[in-house]
Parts: sequence; C-alpha cells; structure tokens
Amino acid sequence: MRFFSDNAAPAHPKVLEAIAAANRVDTAYDGDEWSQRLDGAFSDLFGTEVRAFWVTTGTAANCLALAALCPPYRGILCHRDAHIEVDEAGAPAFFTAGAKLILLDEPGAKLSPETVAAACEHIRDDVHQVQPAALSITNATEYGLLYRAAEIAALGSLAKERGLSFHLDGARIANAIAATGESLADVTWRAGVDAMSFGFVKNGGLNAEALILFRTELADDIAVRRKRAGHLLSKGRYLAAQIVAMVQDDLWLDNARAANAAAQALAQAAPKRLIYPVEANEVFLRVTDEEAGRLQAQGFDFYEWGPGQIRLVTSWDQEREALERLATAIAAL
Amino acid sequence: MRFFSDNAAPAHPKVLEAIAAANRVDTAYDGDEWSQRLDGAFSDLFGTEVRAFWVTTGTAANCLALAALCPPYRGILCHRDAHIEVDEAGAPAFFTAGAKLILLDEPGAKLSPETVAAACEHIRDDVHQVQPAALSITNATEYGLLYRAAEIAALGSLAKERGLSFHLDGARIANAIAATGESLADVTWRAGVDAMSFGFVKNGGLNAEALILFRTELADDIAVRRKRAGHLLSKGRYLAAQIVAMVQDDLWLDNARAANAAAQALAQAAPKRLIYPVEANEVFLRVTDEEAGRLQAQGFDFYEWGPGQIRLVTSWDQEREALERLATAIAAL
Amino acid sequence: MRFFSDNAAPAHPKVLEAIAAANRVDTAYDGDEWSQRLDGAFSDLFGTEVRAFWVTTGTAANCLALAALCPPYRGILCHRDAHIEVDEAGAPAFFTAGAKLILLDEPGAKLSPETVAAACEHIRDDVHQVQPAALSITNATEYGLLYRAAEIAALGSLAKERGLSFHLDGARIANAIAATGESLADVTWRAGVDAMSFGFVKNGGLNAEALILFRTELADDIAVRRKRAGHLLSKGRYLAAQIVAMVQDDLWLDNARAANAAAQALAQAAPKRLIYPVEANEVFLRVTDEEAGRLQAQGFDFYEWGPGQIRLVTSWDQEREALERLATAIAAL
Amino acid sequence: MRFFSDNAAPAHPKVLEAIAAANRVDTAYDGDEWSQRLDGAFSDLFGTEVRAFWVTTGTAANCLALAALCPPYRGILCHRDAHIEVDEAGAPAFFTAGAKLILLDEPGAKLSPETVAAACEHIRDDVHQVQPAALSITNATEYGLLYRAAEIAALGSLAKERGLSFHLDGARIANAIAATGESLADVTWRAGVDAMSFGFVKNGGLNAEALILFRTELADDIAVRRKRAGHLLSKGRYLAAQIVAMVQDDLWLDNARAANAAAQALAQAAPKRLIYPVEANEVFLRVTDEEAGRLQAQGFDFYEWGPGQIRLVTSWDQEREALERLATAIAAL
Repeated sequence: MRFFSDNAAPAHPKVLEAIAAANRVDTAYDGDEWSQRLDGAFSDLFGTEVRAFWVTTGTAANCLALAALCPPYRGILCHRDAHIEVDEAGAPAFFTAGAKLILLDEPGAKLSPETVAAACEHIRDDVHQVQPAALSITNATEYGLLYRAAEIAALGSLAKERGLSFHLDGARIANAIAATGESLADVTWRAGVDAMSFGFVKNGGLNAEALILFRTELADDIAVRRKRAGHLLSKGRYLAAQIVAMVQDDLWLDNARAANAAAQALAQAAPKRLIYPVEANEVFLRVTDEEAGRLQAQGFDFYEWGPGQIRLVTSWDQEREALERLATAIAAL
Repeated sequence: MRFFSDNAAPAHPKVLEAIAAANRVDTAYDGDEWSQRLDGAFSDLFGTEVRAFWVTTGTAANCLALAALCPPYRGILCHRDAHIEVDEAGAPAFFTAGAKLILLDEPGAKLSPETVAAACEHIRDDVHQVQPAALSITNATEYGLLYRAAEIAALGSLAKERGLSFHLDGARIANAIAATGESLADVTWRAGVDAMSFGFVKNGGLNAEALILFRTELADDIAVRRKRAGHLLSKGRYLAAQIVAMVQDDLWLDNARAANAAAQALAQAAPKRLIYPVEANEVFLRVTDEEAGRLQAQGFDFYEWGPGQIRLVTSWDQEREALERLATAIAAL
Repeated sequence: MRFFSDNAAPAHPKVLEAIAAANRVDTAYDGDEWSQRLDGAFSDLFGTEVRAFWVTTGTAANCLALAALCPPYRGILCHRDAHIEVDEAGAPAFFTAGAKLILLDEPGAKLSPETVAAACEHIRDDVHQVQPAALSITNATEYGLLYRAAEIAALGSLAKERGLSFHLDGARIANAIAATGESLADVTWRAGVDAMSFGFVKNGGLNAEALILFRTELADDIAVRRKRAGHLLSKGRYLAAQIVAMVQDDLWLDNARAANAAAQALAQAAPKRLIYPVEANEVFLRVTDEEAGRLQAQGFDFYEWGPGQIRLVTSWDQEREALERLATAIAAL
Repeated sequence: MRFFSDNAAPAHPKVLEAIAAANRVDTAYDGDEWSQRLDGAFSDLFGTEVRAFWVTTGTAANCLALAALCPPYRGILCHRDAHIEVDEAGAPAFFTAGAKLILLDEPGAKLSPETVAAACEHIRDDVHQVQPAALSITNATEYGLLYRAAEIAALGSLAKERGLSFHLDGARIANAIAATGESLADVTWRAGVDAMSFGFVKNGGLNAEALILFRTELADDIAVRRKRAGHLLSKGRYLAAQIVAMVQDDLWLDNARAANAAAQALAQAAPKRLIYPVEANEVFLRVTDEEAGRLQAQGFDFYEWGPGQIRLVTSWDQEREALERLATAIAAL
C-alpha cells in the first residue's frame, strides 16, 4: 500500500479525459485554444491579472522563475531543506547561470522574517560577497507545515524593504489552501509574491505544472527561457488541457482536501509520534527501525527519512481501506 | 486543411491507450516498469546495447546529448539551417554552458565530409579560436533530404579521425528509415554516431521523445543533466508508455510511411515546383505570393518559408481527401 | 625586426615609472588613489560622465561589457571577423552565460547600417530564434579600417531604433582617433555607444586596459561581474597607475600617432600590394609565399594571414631604421 | 600603520626589477622566455613534473582549477569560511558553470577527514542531490591555521577513496611552508593534491599568481579556460618574470618568514587575547569595541572581523618600529 509519494499516484480520470479531448489538430507549441485560456483561468483564480505558463516539472517552474528574478551573480535566500536546494540537482544554478542559494535554518523548513533579516545582516555589502536578490519559500513546506497569509505577508514586506524578489514553491499550494481556507490571493500576490510554481502533478495531474507570474512584465523573459530550456513542448495542448481540467470546478481543491483528510486520519492514529504538526498531506513519524520494519512487513510503502524517522505522504486517491489499516498498524506499534 | 506542421497532428490512438494503461500506482520518476523497459526496447531496435532516456522535447534530447559530448569551451559543427541553430532559442549554448555552434553551409541542410573537413582546416589550432569537439547532423534534414548510411559513415569516419563526437538529430529519423529502408543500425552507431534524439512527437506521439546513447558510458552524466534541467518528470511512466507503444509493432515506422506517402502525393502534383527532392515528409515548393494566397483561400494551411517559397509538411494521419484536394489545387496553379 | 604584433612591443617608460611610483602601501583592490581617479580622468577625456574600470585584457573588457548589455538568451550582432568572434576563445559566451554572436559579413570587418538592418530582418520574431540585444563593432577594425563619427552615429541610430545596445571594441581606438582627428566623444557616446573597451596594452601599456561605461547605471553590475570573473586584482593600483600615465599628457595619442606613421611609411612602399587602405597601424599586403619567405630571410617578423597575404603591425616604438629597411625590402620585391 | 591586509603592502623591489628587465620585445601571450620557464621552475620547486600557469588573481587560479576538476552538475566540498565561498563573489559557480559549494564547518576553517566523510555520507546517492566531485582546502587557512603534511595526506586519501579531486587554495602556502619547514611536495602532490593556486601577491608580488597542476593532463583544458576567461594577458612576460623572481633564490620563502615573524611578535604581546593559535601571518584578537577604537586612535589600521574581534595581517615588509609600537599598544590595552 503506497504512502511513499504523491508522485506515485495515478492521474485523475478527468485529467485523462481532458487529454483525450485535446487529441485533435491544433496549433503547435502554445498557440492552441487550451494554452490560450491559461492566463484567463489563473487570473480568475487569483483575482488579479497574471501570466501563466505550462511546464512539465516543478523544478522547471521554480527555476525558470528564479532565473527571471535573480541575476547570475547574486543569491536566493531559502531554507536549507528547501526542495530547490536538496532535490533539484543544482537546477537553480543551471537555470540562473550560477546564482547562489543562501541557506537558512529553522524548524520544519519554515522561515520567519527574523531569520531572513539576520541572514541579510550577516552578508557584507561589497563585491566580494554574493548579495541576495531573492527570497524563496515553499508552501506547504517540505515538512508539511503551512504558512498563513499574515506570515507570508510579513516575509513579503521584508523582501520589499530589502529589494528582494519573492518566489513561492507551490508544489503543494493546493494542500495549503485546502487546509487553511485562506484565499489564493492572500497567500500569494497580496502578500508580495512575485512568481510561483503551482503544482498539479502531486495532486492528480499527469504531467503538467504551472508557472504563475504576478509580475507580468517578466512574461517575455520566461517565454524565451522556457523554450531555451527545452520546455516548450510542440504539442502543448495536452499540458494546457490538463491544467484547465484541474482548475475547473475546483478539482485541484477537492483532490487536495482528500489528501489532507487522509493525512489527518494517520495523524490521529499516532499523535505522540508526530515530529511536526500535520497540516497538509505529509506525516513525519518517530518510529524505531524495528517498528518501521514491522510496517513494511505489513505491506506499507513509505520513505525512511532518517534515523528513527519515516515520512508518509497521502494522495488524492488514497483508499479508505489502506488508510484504516495503516492507522491501525501505527496505533498498534 | 493542415499542412503546416507535423506537430499540429493529433497523437495516435495507441499512444493515448498506452497512457491510459499506465494510469495506475507506480514508482515515481523513472523507476516504473515502462521506463525500465526502454533500454531493452531500443537495444533490440538498434541491434546493440544502448541507453535510452525519455524527455519531452527534441530540444531537450538534442541539447542534453550535446552537453555530454562537448565541453563549454569548444564547438559543435553543424549546418547553418540546423534546427539546433535556428529553432532552439540558443538551447545548445544553455545546456553546454556556452559551446559554440560552428556553422557550415551546403544545399538542403545536408553536410558532406568535404565541407566539414574544410571548416576544421579553417580553424587555427590555438587557444584563441574555439576548437570543434563535435559534429551534428539532422536526418531527415530540415529540408526533408535524407542521408544514406554510406554518407553518414563517411562523416563518422571523418569525425573519428578528427577526434569529434558525432550527434544525430533524429526528429524525423522514422521518416528517413521509412523512406530508404536502410537499417537503424547502419545510419547510426555503425556509422559512428555517438548519441541521437529519436523523434516521436512529430510522428504520432503525444509528448515523449527519446535520447539514445550509443556511448553508454555517458548515461550517468545524462541522467544527472536531465534532472538538473527539470526534465526528469515525476510521473515518467506516462512518457515511457508512449514510447513503448510507438516502438511496439513498428507503429513508428507505419506512421512515418503514411506521412512520407502523403508527401509523395503532393510532390507528384508539382514536380517542377519542387525546391528539393521530396524524400521524407516535407515538400518545399516555389509559388508566387499570389499563388500562395490562392491556396490559402481554399483553406490550405502551410508555412510561408521565404519569398516565393512554401513548406508543406504531411503527417501520419493526413486525410486522403484533403491531400487530393491540395494536389489538385497545386497542379491547377 | 618585429612587425608581428603590437602586443610584442615593450611598455612605454612612463608606464614603468608609474608602476614604480605606485609601489607603496595603499588600500587593496580598487580603493587606492589611482583607481579612484579613473572615473574623473575618463570623464574629462570623453567630455561626459563615465564610469571606468581597469582590467588586464581586452577580452575581459569587451566581455564584461557584453554581459551587462545582453542577457544569456539573446544575441550580439557583430562582424564574422570581429575579435570577439575569432580570437577570444568563446569568451562572450562564457561571460554572458550563452549569448549568441550573430555573424555579419562585409569587407574589412567594417559594418554598415544596411547589413545590420538586413540581419535583423532575417530573424523571425518568435521564441524559437535568438533575438539580437546588442550590436558590437571594432574601431579601428580588425583590418585596420576606421569608422568615422558619422558612420558610427548611423549605426547608433539604427541600434536605438531596434532596441539594441551598442558596444565598441576599442582595442585600437587610440589609433583611430590619432588618424582621423575626430573627438573621442563623437565616435563613442555621442554616436550612441553604451560601453567600450579602451585599449592601452597594444599602445605602450604594460597590462592595463579600461572598460568604459557611458550608461553609468551599469556600473554596479560590472563591478560585481569583474570580481566574479577573477578580474578584481588585489593590488589594482598598479593597473590604475598605468592608465593614468597613459591618459596624462596625451601619451595614448602620441604613441598611436607614432604607430600610425610607421604604418603609413610601409603603405607608401607598396601601394599596389595593399589589400585594405592603411588607416591605422595595420598593413595587409598581397605577397606570394616566395616573397614572404624573402622578407623573413631578411629578419622581418610578421603574421602570415592567409594564402598570399601577410599582416604587418606597427607599434609605438617602431624603430626608424627597421622601418626603412622593411619599406625598402617590400618595394624591392 | 598598516595591519589591514597583506594585499596593501608594496611589491618587493626584486619584483619591480624583474618587470623592468622584461621590458623588451618578446613574443605575445605566453610565448615569451619567462613564461616558458615556469613549468621547469615549479617542477624543480615541487620535485615532480607540474604544469604552471600565470594568472593575476587567486580567484582566477582557484576557480580555473575547480572548473577543470568539477563538472557543472556536481559539488565541491569546502569550509563555510573558505575564501572560495565567502570572498570570491560566486566565482566558483561562474567558472564551473554552476557547480555547488557544499559547506562544512569546523573551527579555524580547517577541515578534518571525519567532517568531510560525514558530509559525504549525508548526501543521498541519486540524481536529485548534487554529488560531490572535489574537495577544496586552504593552507594556511582563512584564520591563519596550518595543515601539516600528514593531515593533508589523510584528506587526500579520503578524497581518493571517494573519487573526489583535491584542490588546494595556496594564497598563503608560502607562509605555511615558512612556518612548518615541511616540504612543498609533502603538503601538495605527495598528499594527493591535484591542483593548487600558489599565491605571490600577498607575499611581495605585484600582480602575478600561479596555478599549478599536478595532474598535468589537465593543462590543455586550463589553457583554453584561461583564455576564455580573459586571463591570457597579451604581454604575459611581465607576469612570468615576477613569478620567476619570487621563486628564484627563495624570495617567496624569505618574504613569508618575515611576515610570519612579525605575526609572532604580535601574538606574544597578547597571548590571552588570541582567538586562534598564530601559525602564519594572521592574528585574530579578542578586543572590545572600545579597545579597538583606542588602537585605531593610535594610527593602527586593521580589519574589524566581527563583534569583539579584530584581524591583524602582517606583511613581508612589516616595519620593526610599527610592529613594536603595536605590540606595546596591545599589551597595554
């Protein structure tokens, strides 16, 4: 039973239907009707004018955005456990032509203005040290914690004050919104975010993610960078159609709610083992190696995060039965 | 009626079926069963051990390969009309970190050993001039011409002699094989090719292309570069399954034969207007602006290539009726 | 007797004196008194406010400027024989992180607005083709030809019209000014030039060149890029002092006049053999291999440019006797 | 009185003499007689065949070496206070096209095999995380500590075992050798070092540093990279001559001994204030802001390192009188 990664889940049937419906002659690249609808669809969703680009990975979405926000010779402040630092194989340096990730530390991969400000203070303002140009956060964080709108706004204010661009890794933004009920606008552009990745693949998509620009003047730059990075697919309509399907009728929100609920079910089974509060669809538990082995022996598949820690990730399609069996198994450890 | 680009055609039904069949839980990234079958499937196809990687664009396939074959400070000999030079937005420079495309000229975007050798001779062998490290050709060429096995082998020998790696842009390799009946082995690794892109999207695929390494020792390098460029999709099974479907039962060859036959039908309608012999699925015609306008007025969609020239590209699904109408219309000009 | 390159000449005694005079304790990097005087000295020289940076090579000066003027994903229009294309080992791609040199052709490595405009027209305005962002010319050109102020102004107007930045490779700008008597202002910023390299090493300097910014708002960017490229010397005062000495009392102009006069003496010896008019300090002659051999046998050292062509370069210190002997030898061929 | 930086000191008279002696016609770039002698001079010095390149900065020497040792998509293990991390403006990322510095921590910027091994263990061996390709240390360290031959050899063994290249930042290698009396061979190639920068500018040089390759097969790569980075000076003889002068008659060692002795004099004045043992030519002292102010008021110039810390750096020419006055002033605090 899979609790390994939301990337292992299937695509939602509506996503497959949308691909099939797009299977007809249309203009190449992003000239098709679905691609043309993305700007409008996301502008409606965010309640402000945005520019939206399909890409196939979160890494591409994040790093294209970072490349537009940070010159090669400056740095991006982020958490030391941020996905862009630990799981993108150096893609930020590749896309930006060498910008430096300036690593900050704080529990749960969640940054506070104090930590960001202290890091800025620590950097000598001269040509010898790499000066920060951007701040990047992840919501939900890599440990499943959520930023509230006010928290992001505080980071956004600090960024503005210090002349930093503000990037959001939204691989699990749907889970964040589903959990807090806050508005997309409040946790993004109203809080000062300039550009973000909007994740769909972990949330029932097949292979389409979105890059959203609130600073719409960066769109031409991004369009060229996307092509140059080999990310302008010649039959882009199959990506755009997936995204349109996810955004329509709140499918993105429904899927995220289902995944979050599954995580809550697990959390309640082992409140004392939780390493972090369970706020989205990730559950980090303290278990001994022996206990982990017992769970695996019962057919549960998950990530051994580190000594004495496991990570469970729930998905939009998590079966009730498997969930109950795991909850029972954890409680019984 | 679409004669604009093979990128505008739909995906083949079997490709869609393969995607649907892959829509179940499986390992993330390229750990799934379809991805695991690619090396074997292509090794069988080529009759030698190869390493195969799915990516989503020909640009990614070409440029990842070039990055593995050419250091940042050297150059890649190619035709001045090569896709990597004129239609990839500088992606070769991005992926290689600055390698230079050294541009050669010859009719029909097809290179001969004489031209390549002369270009090498022209470069002073010192640290001031960029020294070539690789040769890249496209088969079928950007003007729909074909290299025969012996021609590629002659280029391969020259490359070997001069210490150049040899890259093949195979966006339309299927059309080439379908037309000549030569073996894949003979026009690739037996002729000295080190790495190639194998195009599927123009040939009935949805969004999966393959990068094939004959120098299998480059596989680890490519695997990291693919991830770093944001091209390691988290649900890679949907790409792998497409490719497996295309390779199975010679679907790639059947589709290419259909497209080639359609091009021949058009070529026969206007033998005197042909700018290049029609060997694959592209037809370049001499027509006046007025004539082009007349064709457009009849509902035919094509590319105005330059003053007095149009390009017609046929696809795997080209309808007989539209084809006959266009052939008639051209003949009637 | 050396007619091989102005790089082979010694440094002028005043340059050595300036280095010796700077040999005392002072602030590191560019905080010293000589470095601090550069902006002022060049602002006086150009008659407008500029920002000036010492570097040690023309390649560094040119490519730092280009990096500030052209993003990684765009192109720089230049002559196919431009130094940045043929003699800088791909440095423009390195410094710009992959910008493309878009090569133009015209006699004598001298560009006209017509050629530049035609090249721009040829580029499809979409994300697939690399769009130009800058124009670069060399004055005196690589073949010793001069641009007049009006010619540069015409190029500058075109550049402005098309949104292109304008870079000048001034490795031999001193020779150009010495020859035409035009003002530095007229052939640079008044003609629309944004940034330039100002060569000293070929003109009696030891190892200091200058990068001049007319768009002074680029200074912070350049300062960081210089450091990042390893070009911020820790004892920069020895470079700055050289430049101050060259600029003072018109030493740069006196040296260039001497070199130009020497070239004229050679030109007059063989008016019918000249491949290009001799306008600065380079003389390209048509001679047979046998004739070239005869000159070499008499102890004259020069560059065999290509089949039947030799290049003679005169320097600030060219001895009258050697000059007369060579003039006589050429006339006697 | 200057205790700010060894970069602020003048050049040694013999260095100036060497420059003057090189002031005659010779071949351009590195074809001159002095440049041609470098390989031999350093091979003698190290007791093994090496390849030596002049450059003008330690940043260039370090980062050219790192670029030859680490591909763009891998990482370099180094101390978080290493010069390449904190004082080179991101140059390693620029020269390597994006390699990552993987930061380690240990007192005094000195690394042990345990720390390096632990860092390696911490990195998941997959394509998502940046894998290390090289290890870089500085000797003397940024805090003036020394590695002994056996310590470097232990690091070298570990590097070999883990397939890491081994780079040494030798900005103050002269001070290290002068202090320990160990042989250059023992602390470099015999200990497994592959490439190093050899600093001269902080030690009485004017503007020439050396890059030394023990893996001589990298020489062609470095030669091209040096040119491409704008670091191949056209009159390289003035750099080579400086280096030859420094190496001859042990000038490099004499100068370093003088600087070290000066540091010892200061260290003895305030043994209880020392933050690190004084082993080379840097003295880090605990002083209050008020105390620092008192020293400044007496005309002593130094670096305020951080809260309650100052850095004093002594030079080859440190005057005895200033030294005694500072020692007295510190003792009197």
